[in-house]
Amino acid sequence: MDKMKRAERMVAVMQVLMSKPNMLVPLTLLAERFGAAKSTISEDLLAVKESMRYTGQGRLETVSGAAGGVRYIPEINSEDANEFLVGLADRLSSPDRVLAGGFLYMTDLLYDPAILRPLGLIFAGAFREKKPEVVVTIETKGIPLALVTAEALGLPMIIIRHGNKVTEGTAVSINYVSGSSRRIQSMSLGRRALEPGRKVLLIDDFMKAGGTALGMMNLLKEFGADVVGFGVLMETPRESEPKLVDHYLSLLQLRELDPYKGVVRVIPQEIM
Amino acid sequence: MDKMKRAERMVAVMQVLMSKPNMLVPLTLLAERFGAAKSTISEDLLAVKESMRYTGQGRLETVSGAAGGVRYIPEINSEDANEFLVGLADRLSSPDRVLAGGFLYMTDLLYDPAILRPLGLIFAGAFREKKPEVVVTIETKGIPLALVTAEALGLPMIIIRHGNKVTEGTAVSINYVSGSSRRIQSMSLGRRALEPGRKVLLIDDFMKAGGTALGMMNLLKEFGADVVGFGVLMETPRESEPKLVDHYLSLLQLRELDPYKGVVRVIPQEIM
Repeated sequence: MDKMKRAERMVAVMQVLMSKPNMLVPLTLLAERFGAAKSTISEDLLAVKESMRYTGQGRLETVSGAAGGVRYIPEINSEDANEFLVGLADRLSSPDRVLAGGFLYMTDLLYDPAILRPLGLIFAGAFREKKPEVVVTIETKGIPLALVTAEALGLPMIIIRHGNKVTEGTAVSINYVSGSSRRIQSMSLGRRALEPGRKVLLIDDFMKAGGTALGMMNLLKEFGADVVGFGVLMETPRESEPKLVDHYLSLLQLRELDPYKGVVRVIPQEIM
Repeated sequence: MDKMKRAERMVAVMQVLMSKPNMLVPLTLLAERFGAAKSTISEDLLAVKESMRYTGQGRLETVSGAAGGVRYIPEINSEDANEFLVGLADRLSSPDRVLAGGFLYMTDLLYDPAILRPLGLIFAGAFREKKPEVVVTIETKGIPLALVTAEALGLPMIIIRHGNKVTEGTAVSINYVSGSSRRIQSMSLGRRALEPGRKVLLIDDFMKAGGTALGMMNLLKEFGADVVGFGVLMETPRESEPKLVDHYLSLLQLRELDPYKGVVRVIPQEIM
């Protein structure tokens, strides 16, 4: 292949880094791949860093030394984040989302990559400094949210199952009382899914009384896990419904939902 | 902000496009954002396209006309894809993955964004030309795989639930016989989750006899859906276990799993 021009090489370097977010890419690998000296790649990276000032959508982190390299950290700036949450709250406040039984229909948004991506970046931005080592959720609706958060942080995800599943091997199982249904249920996590003493970020889609969240925390205690953060997409207001857990970040609040009048009002929370 | 140099602008354009994969970004938006003429941005995009020749990791698609713009299509080249599957098959062929009952432990890999990303790109590459409009899976283990495939294709995802869930509204529910357990189970999909007559790509993690797959297809018929593709990560060999469905793409094959001897052998399939 013929020799690349500098601008072309910078774009190609950017593409390689963004294709592997959060992964350390050695400078030698970039140098070999694009047929340039390491010092040339270093200069390119300085210019690439400079370009990122203009977008506010991520940054490069350089690790020096023999085992060093560079990684792309995806980010969302607070202006974009707040604007996105205002728009999402607005879409969720639509009367045709009110379901029988007083539930809010939100799976169309919860499973849409275009909605999930910014949510993952928001959670990642809020919890990155707590240095979680794994993102944990419980099946089913919180899984996509947990996955995009894990991806934005460059971490693996773990899914707590309802009941006990044969495909997980030896598992720890606990009973818990779901705060809203008041029914006793069980949840389990495979022994080999989580090493003892890990720093965990909990992610879930919705919190009412927090019975499920409390159950997850109790289950994680059995693994000696340290829950360093807990993020939920939406909660009911704390004043009208006391929570069984403290210290969590919710992005949206369900202020009002009246299935008889067909009224729903979701508001964004102040996040940054 | 001071005026950008050409190389910086090209990198910033690349970053914006890669942050919104599969989304059409109008040239006017890029021109405004980076304070350049539309013709300048057009020239930049030609050079960016040129850069991508060097990576083989995606391409730019230009849509001309008043409603036109440019979108980034993430891709994986066949060499990287095959190399990745060989490595994955090797990791899965480890005796300590054999669980009691003859199951293979694979959730650690199935929930890891670094493993999922290439898998999503492989499925997307295999099915893009079928022009699916939505990616459908069934809870739980296939969800991350379906999500990354949907993201790589720029499509929404839909999750079929076991039983019937109150948070999905009015739902269509069917009974099916899981091929491996021979038990009658039910699965359901909310009426509003899928508009009639849509082109669907089915994604699942594992196929044994295909009873669950057949159930999903029957359920989707109730929505007038056209299943244009079906991808599974792993299957048991067709010769030893006849399948209830035809025409699917599997990436890996579980050739052998002996829980008594602790032997497991997974092989990659020829995909491109």
